[in-house]
Amino acid sequence: MEGLKRYGQMINKYKGHIIVSPIMTGGILPGEVQRKIVEEGWLRVGYAICHDCLEGRSSLLGRPPVREFLKDVAHFFGGEVAEHTLGCRGAQFAVMKTISDLARASGRRSGVVLVDSLCHYTTCIAAEMAGLRVVEVPNTGYPEYRVTAEDYVKRIESIREEEGILPALLVATHVDPYHGNLSPVEEIGRVAEEDGIPYMVNAAYTAGVLPVNMSEMRADFLTVSAHKSMASLGPLGFLITSRDWSERLFKTSSLRMDWSGREFGKKVPSLFGCSIGGLPLISAMYAFPHVAERVGRWEEELEKTRWFIREMEQIGGLKLLGERPHRHHLLHFETPVFWEISKHHRRRGFFLAEEMIRRGIVGLQRGLSRHIKLSVYGLPMEEVRKVRDAFQEIKEKYVERFDLTDYRG
Amino acid sequence: MEGLKRYGQMINKYKGHIIVSPIMTGGILPGEVQRKIVEEGWLRVGYAICHDCLEGRSSLLGRPPVREFLKDVAHFFGGEVAEHTLGCRGAQFAVMKTISDLARASGRRSGVVLVDSLCHYTTCIAAEMAGLRVVEVPNTGYPEYRVTAEDYVKRIESIREEEGILPALLVATHVDPYHGNLSPVEEIGRVAEEDGIPYMVNAAYTAGVLPVNMSEMRADFLTVSAHKSMASLGPLGFLITSRDWSERLFKTSSLRMDWSGREFGKKVPSLFGCSIGGLPLISAMYAFPHVAERVGRWEEELEKTRWFIREMEQIGGLKLLGERPHRHHLLHFETPVFWEISKHHRRRGFFLAEEMIRRGIVGLQRGLSRHIKLSVYGLPMEEVRKVRDAFQEIKEKYVERFDLTDYRG
Repeated sequence: MEGLKRYGQMINKYKGHIIVSPIMTGGILPGEVQRKIVEEGWLRVGYAICHDCLEGRSSLLGRPPVREFLKDVAHFFGGEVAEHTLGCRGAQFAVMKTISDLARASGRRSGVVLVDSLCHYTTCIAAEMAGLRVVEVPNTGYPEYRVTAEDYVKRIESIREEEGILPALLVATHVDPYHGNLSPVEEIGRVAEEDGIPYMVNAAYTAGVLPVNMSEMRADFLTVSAHKSMASLGPLGFLITSRDWSERLFKTSSLRMDWSGREFGKKVPSLFGCSIGGLPLISAMYAFPHVAERVGRWEEELEKTRWFIREMEQIGGLKLLGERPHRHHLLHFETPVFWEISKHHRRRGFFLAEEMIRRGIVGLQRGLSRHIKLSVYGLPMEEVRKVRDAFQEIKEKYVERFDLTDYRG
Repeated sequence: MEGLKRYGQMINKYKGHIIVSPIMTGGILPGEVQRKIVEEGWLRVGYAICHDCLEGRSSLLGRPPVREFLKDVAHFFGGEVAEHTLGCRGAQFAVMKTISDLARASGRRSGVVLVDSLCHYTTCIAAEMAGLRVVEVPNTGYPEYRVTAEDYVKRIESIREEEGILPALLVATHVDPYHGNLSPVEEIGRVAEEDGIPYMVNAAYTAGVLPVNMSEMRADFLTVSAHKSMASLGPLGFLITSRDWSERLFKTSSLRMDWSGREFGKKVPSLFGCSIGGLPLISAMYAFPHVAERVGRWEEELEKTRWFIREMEQIGGLKLLGERPHRHHLLHFETPVFWEISKHHRRRGFFLAEEMIRRGIVGLQRGLSRHIKLSVYGLPMEEVRKVRDAFQEIKEKYVERFDLTDYRG
């Protein structure tokens, strides 16, 4: 038991660091939200908001106003009904499970889900867990990796030819996690609508950062990550849908127990009964006014990101991948200069993230130097400059030290 | 957008209240843990511990030492391998899904899961989601509601007779959420072992509160709720198992995407890929030394609970249901005196929880006055007395006011 004491001593090594991890920058809590959580004593107990629960499901709570909050979340994203979920992965699983059950029940649709080839792994895993077969829509490959609506059309055709039936679900990843490309979700939505195929947009990286309207996308399901892009603690996601679909997605339990006769009429199986009203949900409620406001400032953020891209490429030996002009804060650079340095450095590929950390900047994937992903979303300009300067300094230092003449300049 | 501002102003009505909700008392965070979370800046970002993730799964993290922590959790509960999960419901679903897949693949076992008739609703919902049929083992009914190993034997027999096959899984709820009865988990484990049926114990209300050893129970799977009984923020659970079972339960994804060739070899489908390293996990790590220590003081807690039961029953018009002597802190009282008062009170059944809240005590289910559930686990004696006194005062006040002669004295 003595050995366990070390868990009580854990420190946060990166407490004051500038965070540039693209999975994190949209999830940083405003200072005011952090203060409220502490001041109001929400850290005291796991089931923080369940005191006034009358119906046995956190999404039905009137105090605090979770039910109203979920309505506001639904409307904010152009939908009609929202439920909070155990992460965006939980939201995706609820959709996949519902589609899988419908496909099985009807026999009319194949159990194929068509996804873009840049989707997040959780999309694939959710489909796997729901017993759906995943088929990919190609992308254009290096250096832009674009996904087009035409490629959805082609792939739907080939599935129809091969299997004699349409996919059970189309999935588009609003912004892909590899290159930060914005998918043509509205065009894909028209394809889905024309073919009458249910359509899910995974907005894990966008909802809460830039304007997202699922009805303009013609999406039936919008999946959202609060800890990725709604300035919230995790794990927390949202699933937003239409009133019609909500009746299937959020159908309450129809169990009646054989001996006791127990029923669980308010519980939603696809949400594991109730998705639990813990601190992540509270943080999302506190952060929501801030999130709604910052989405209106997205163009400013995008300008800042584009400035940063230009500055980075001027360093030399760094090149942005993905679409140009870039339309999201997730940036993926090819970095041949750092790759070259790593071949000479005793820390190999680890040197880059470590040099950054020494400069108070955390978020590059450790070990990678040939490609890097980062984001300066939400950072004040002086910190963005500091990040740019850090890359520049690191480059110059090692180009000099290892005499890498190709990269001088 | 103006309307959203109210979410930024939410207050915690019960900030300083004594908490007696039996789903919460085992989940209250020690002050020291709350302090560490704030001091170390863990409230800043959703994916708080993912900076040093190399393998793409939070349970494999070396810094902070999540991998070691999970080993310690496994050993603490008498198991070999542990994963953290999206709540105890997530842990139960992972078990049910695995069992369901095995049953389907082998064709040797029926898809029936045999549960005690006092199991938590999440057990039933997890089975429903995994496509298993749930069958209940009876209990002895009023006033003790006991579940016996003999009744498991009988029910297994009847299933064998009716379906020609054994259940795919036995489930015992270590302490039931209705009356706080301790289930004969070791005897049931011998039954499971003799019949060769996989065996899951749901320890949501016990693991982290009283000594729990799954190998003594002969359990294959132990499911735990960190926010119910490990002094942690939610949602967070643990699934603990043997090395053998871990290979099936936590099998990594076997997907290979058709166009891109992508694979997700570190991701565990039954955990939705990765169960996310957020603040709940950090809180559980900080709380673990405290939890390990308090389990050693369980007998003291039980003495306190038994003292409280005696005091409550001396008030008159209150009677504990469930087993006697009681062996858990979850208490369910029949309260005819409060039921009688509610018939005269303008707030009807709501008067009781409201009177308690006025006295700074929160946690009774609003609206209920015929039966109440509560817990004084972890409260200092002066607060336990305060809770007792509150019930006494409320009783006397209204017996007097409404002249309820049957309850005088």
